[in-house]
Amino acid sequence: MSKLYLVGIGPGSSDYLTKAAIECANSVDVLVGSQRALDLFPGFAGETLVLRARNMDEMMKKSISLVDEGRNVAILSTGDPGFSGVLKPILKLQEDLDLEVIPGISSLQLAAARLQLPWDEINLLTLHGKGNSQVILDYVDNGKPTMVLPDFRVEKLAQFLIDEGTNPERKVSVCERLSYPDERIVTGNLREIAYMEFSYLCVMVVY
Amino acid sequence: MSKLYLVGIGPGSSDYLTKAAIECANSVDVLVGSQRALDLFPGFAGETLVLRARNMDEMMKKSISLVDEGRNVAILSTGDPGFSGVLKPILKLQEDLDLEVIPGISSLQLAAARLQLPWDEINLLTLHGKGNSQVILDYVDNGKPTMVLPDFRVEKLAQFLIDEGTNPERKVSVCERLSYPDERIVTGNLREIAYMEFSYLCVMVVY
Repeated sequence: MSKLYLVGIGPGSSDYLTKAAIECANSVDVLVGSQRALDLFPGFAGETLVLRARNMDEMMKKSISLVDEGRNVAILSTGDPGFSGVLKPILKLQEDLDLEVIPGISSLQLAAARLQLPWDEINLLTLHGKGNSQVILDYVDNGKPTMVLPDFRVEKLAQFLIDEGTNPERKVSVCERLSYPDERIVTGNLREIAYMEFSYLCVMVVY
Repeated sequence: MSKLYLVGIGPGSSDYLTKAAIECANSVDVLVGSQRALDLFPGFAGETLVLRARNMDEMMKKSISLVDEGRNVAILSTGDPGFSGVLKPILKLQEDLDLEVIPGISSLQLAAARLQLPWDEINLLTLHGKGNSQVILDYVDNGKPTMVLPDFRVEKLAQFLIDEGTNPERKVSVCERLSYPDERIVTGNLREIAYMEFSYLCVMVVY
C-alpha cells in the first residue's frame, strides 16, 4: 500500500532533523520539497520534485496522484507540518488518503529556545496565508507574550501594530533566519523594529 | 566558560532525537536525566546523574552548582524544555546563568501528527504541576479543539470535565505512550474515556 508522508524538517539547518525524518525521506520513491529542503538529503537516490511558491497547489495534487499510482511520496515541510505547514492544505485537497505525519521542530520552538521563553503559556499565532494581520489584535493585549509567524515583512507588522494603537515602546524580539549561519536575534521596541529591515524568514515575539 | 544546556529529547524513542540534541549531549561533562532519557545516549562516557520525581529540585540545583564549578552540564528534558519542561523551573532557580536551550519534539506535536490535527489554531494546555484541572474549563468551550497534558490520570480528567458540565458525548482522543512500541491511540467520547484505564504518559484532545 503506497502512502503520502508529510515530513517536518525543522527550521532549516540539518541540526534539527530527527532520525524519523531522515529515515522516512530516504525510504520513499519520490521526495517533494523546496530546493533548500531537498538539499538536506544529498544521498537521496529517487525522483525529486521541486516545490516553489507558485507551484505549491500543483505539486501537492501531483504528490497525491503519484501515491494513487502506487508510489511512496514524502513532502518535506519546513518546521512542523501541523503548524502553519503542509498538513492543512493536504487535508483540504483530499481527506481519505493514506497519510502519515512526521512532526518537526517549528521555528517557533527554536525562537522560544533562543529567547529562553517558555511557550506553554503564550499566544502562538501564524499569519501565513491570512491575507492580513488583523487577527493578532485579538491576542496582543491579553496579558501574555504573543509569538507570531508574520505573513509579510516583520517591520510592516510592527508598523501595523503601532497604527492600530499598540504602544510604540512595547518590547519585541525578532528572530531572523533561525538555524542558519547568518541567524540574527534583535530585541527592541516596536518603533525600532518598524524602522529596521529583515528577511522574510522571521519569528516575532511581542512581550 | 562553562554552560548549562537544556536539551529536548522528544517524546521518548530515539526516533525523535535531533542531531543538535545528540551532539550536545555527547559533548558535555555531565549528563542529567531520567534513566529512560539517559538510556538514549548509551555511548556517553562522562558522569551521569539520574533524575527522579522526588529529586528534581535537588538535581537542578546540583546541575547549576556543577556549572559554577566549571563543568558543562546538560539536563535532558522529555519533549521540549520550553513546553511544560525544565526551562521554567531552571529560570526560577537562577536567572543569570549561561544557558542554552535545544528544542525538542513535544508529545503534543506527535499527538497532533498521529491524529492528523493541525495545531496552529487549537488550544494547547499543560496541567503539569498545576495541582488541579480547573484551567481547562477556560478553554474547552471556546470553539477550538483543546490538546492537554494532564496532571493526573487522563480518565480522571475526563470524569472531571463531565462533573463540571461538559457533554459526556463530547468526542475525545487519548494518545498513550507516544513513540513507544506499546503506543495506543483511543478515540471515543468523554464517558467512554472516563471508564477506561490509561498510563501516566498521555495526551488528550477534546474536540
